[in-house]
Amino acid sequence: MNYRMIIAILGYILRVEGVLLFLPALVAVFYREWSHAGIFAVLGAVLLLLSFLMTHAEKGAPRKRIQMREGFVIVSFGWLLLSLGGALPFYFSGEIPSLVDCFFESASGFTTTGSTILTDVERLSYSLLFWRSFTHWIGGMGVLVFLLGLMPKLDASGVQLVKAESPGVMPGKLVPRLAQSSRILYGIYTVMTILLILLLVAAGMPFFDSVIHAMGTAGTGGYSMKNASIGAYHSMTIEMIIAVFMLLFGVNFNLYYFLVNRKWKDVLSNDEWKVYFLVVAFSVLFIMVNTLPGCGGSLLQAFRGAFFSVSSIITTTGYGTVDFNLWPAFSRFLMVLLMMVGACGGSTGGGLKVSRVIILFRCMNREINRILHPNQIRGVRSDGQTLDSNVVRQVLVFFFTYMMVIIGGSLLVSLDGFDLETTVTAVISAVSNIGPGLAGVGPVENYAAFSPLSKIVLSITMLTGRLELFPMLLLFRPSTWKKE
Amino acid sequence: MNYRMIIAILGYILRVEGVLLFLPALVAVFYREWSHAGIFAVLGAVLLLLSFLMTHAEKGAPRKRIQMREGFVIVSFGWLLLSLGGALPFYFSGEIPSLVDCFFESASGFTTTGSTILTDVERLSYSLLFWRSFTHWIGGMGVLVFLLGLMPKLDASGVQLVKAESPGVMPGKLVPRLAQSSRILYGIYTVMTILLILLLVAAGMPFFDSVIHAMGTAGTGGYSMKNASIGAYHSMTIEMIIAVFMLLFGVNFNLYYFLVNRKWKDVLSNDEWKVYFLVVAFSVLFIMVNTLPGCGGSLLQAFRGAFFSVSSIITTTGYGTVDFNLWPAFSRFLMVLLMMVGACGGSTGGGLKVSRVIILFRCMNREINRILHPNQIRGVRSDGQTLDSNVVRQVLVFFFTYMMVIIGGSLLVSLDGFDLETTVTAVISAVSNIGPGLAGVGPVENYAAFSPLSKIVLSITMLTGRLELFPMLLLFRPSTWKKE
Repeated sequence: MNYRMIIAILGYILRVEGVLLFLPALVAVFYREWSHAGIFAVLGAVLLLLSFLMTHAEKGAPRKRIQMREGFVIVSFGWLLLSLGGALPFYFSGEIPSLVDCFFESASGFTTTGSTILTDVERLSYSLLFWRSFTHWIGGMGVLVFLLGLMPKLDASGVQLVKAESPGVMPGKLVPRLAQSSRILYGIYTVMTILLILLLVAAGMPFFDSVIHAMGTAGTGGYSMKNASIGAYHSMTIEMIIAVFMLLFGVNFNLYYFLVNRKWKDVLSNDEWKVYFLVVAFSVLFIMVNTLPGCGGSLLQAFRGAFFSVSSIITTTGYGTVDFNLWPAFSRFLMVLLMMVGACGGSTGGGLKVSRVIILFRCMNREINRILHPNQIRGVRSDGQTLDSNVVRQVLVFFFTYMMVIIGGSLLVSLDGFDLETTVTAVISAVSNIGPGLAGVGPVENYAAFSPLSKIVLSITMLTGRLELFPMLLLFRPSTWKKE
Repeated sequence: MNYRMIIAILGYILRVEGVLLFLPALVAVFYREWSHAGIFAVLGAVLLLLSFLMTHAEKGAPRKRIQMREGFVIVSFGWLLLSLGGALPFYFSGEIPSLVDCFFESASGFTTTGSTILTDVERLSYSLLFWRSFTHWIGGMGVLVFLLGLMPKLDASGVQLVKAESPGVMPGKLVPRLAQSSRILYGIYTVMTILLILLLVAAGMPFFDSVIHAMGTAGTGGYSMKNASIGAYHSMTIEMIIAVFMLLFGVNFNLYYFLVNRKWKDVLSNDEWKVYFLVVAFSVLFIMVNTLPGCGGSLLQAFRGAFFSVSSIITTTGYGTVDFNLWPAFSRFLMVLLMMVGACGGSTGGGLKVSRVIILFRCMNREINRILHPNQIRGVRSDGQTLDSNVVRQVLVFFFTYMMVIIGGSLLVSLDGFDLETTVTAVISAVSNIGPGLAGVGPVENYAAFSPLSKIVLSITMLTGRLELFPMLLLFRPSTWKKE
């Protein structure tokens, strides 16, 4: 293990967070929350100081390059540190008294989960609301992707870091230099976020609210500043704007780059977005039919609730306008399935990812086909190309691991004694970085009632899900820490 | 497709069922249920007649050998026919008025699920009780395995049939000739069943009851003749005898053959039974601790309930002594996991099978290991040997397919509008051939409340699970029916 490089890069990550903490300090100044401004500024300064101490370790490092396992360790610890650092403003402001709750809220923010332990979010100060939602924005695209954009000298280590931080995008595919592609991605991301803010303001949402909800939408996070979430605005226009943008942020960002560069072939050969929109369309249709009686037979009302909720859940955002926990069993179960499917790979959304689900179904299909034609050897195809058998195997193992994380997490959370629907959907929601689940963690509920153990388990599950399982699991393996 | 051979072998399957129907006819005579005796005898005769007509098709068959896909089609239709045939006595006796209910009860019997639509099983006549439980016994070891033991001339087609009918045992491994090995297996099975009957009688259970429960235990089925299942006897001795025998029938039968032939090495090199007993031991321990307060702190009572229930569920039998639906969330969730794990491969039990679960965990472990040591190429080992990568892939795809069957079934059953715990555990219970689930299908409940659609979906799911998924799924694929 190249501990010196690990510490140094962790230092750079803290430096990013330290600098970012000055943003909510400015918000605090603007809203005359003076003590909060001080807290943010001091915490930012402390992180910067710590960062400078840590980056000194780079000098004596045996190699500047890092290996894959070191990349995984950096990413896991980096995200743990980020979450811990992000928890401090909540704690020192006194607005969330329990440190475990602060960590949960911060991890939920950075992982773009959007689950909250707050029973009344409307009591939170402006600067904390901003910080809370800003963690979504930065966590959605990825902190290491951000870091790479700023520090081209990390390019050598970059591939390992970015690999480990996916579903943050895989910028390596766009242009040869990582730093440049991560800047392109953050560029697209920023432009789309600003566009959304402008649209929301035009639709009548106050400016601050628009910024909060645009950041939550862009990161597919789901933190709102209203207890009734987007439903509080009682505006079909606002709901439709956010529903459409949630879907857009759930698409692989590489596609936007291709679009901007008019690489139509690359867009058309991609299967994932087509399946993604088909799944959305059919889910909305089925739920509309199923919930129509509950909507008094109004097609528009059924569409409005179904479209927003499907878009919110498949993109793993978690904003709410209706309480889908009150829907009939079929629609509720469909929502759980969408929670597991998740958005497209290379988007800001979580879950298994549509591309993986496509590969899984094709694997199943091929296996059945082998029975019919035992001598025919066929690969699994994706985007018009035959996949390497290693990739196929990784996807299959990923699915099993994903289910095992859900099962392991649910076993621990079940010790709290809530009903199984609450327990299991809370964990699914955490690993897929969504926010709401069903029953006790439904769209109008929150996570305040869980024990500290469950809150920690759920926070770790969120981080595990955000980093695509393996980096966090690696930390728990003794052999990771053995000398070569 | 070799339709003539398919029809002929289906005819042989019906002949087996026709002959077997005379057994409950004898039971009916013994208990002076004269009209029932007539019904069983006439139905048996009708099936025999039909069988002779069908086996005529063999003469013009283009080949005597069958291909794998034909084997799968035969097994799927064979089991559907068996279930339909087995449903007739329930229907014509008038004791179960709905044909869908009769089919459900019969499919549940043959697949050794043991779910019932009867709200009061104690009202059933002796001969029907016997027939119902006898379907467990024959379904547990496998109808085609039985057929192969009787008809050595099917040896050429046998491998395809047995492959498709697993988890019925893989007799090919024992001795070169299939007919002989299937006789060995049925021999061991019969001896163990008789031993169990004797022990139950010795423990004070009436003879008829002992036969019923021995057949239900041997096939890991779970049909009882008491509404309170095994709990009705209020005897710790009886409970312990059945709990131990359920576990024994959940072990790979090849091991018994090895034991009888003193092939100690083959027994010791097998990982599955060790993991199986470890899982049982730890599950019992965890549930004991978790349910201890509910048992008034009595260790013995906690052990009694936990041991019987764990044994009943992991072997996918489904007998009950306590209502585990009333246990705390942790224990209830653990039971759901045991439902999915299931018994050992090559036993009469269902579920994913312990051997597959072992391979899945080793795959996950290997994948994590690849991150640490990217250049190290390691296979997945089982029973001291490195597995072929095809086997590993099949297991991974099997797991995904198993989850998709659960999801697909649950979507259809959810249309009934029951809570998700009822819906999902009913389907898990069906695909793993267990019997009880949780909530509305808990150990003291039954399946009477479901709609006809759900009952048919659950019956098909049971058959899909019993035949290890792919044979039934194949029937739904258009390309199965295309000409080569």
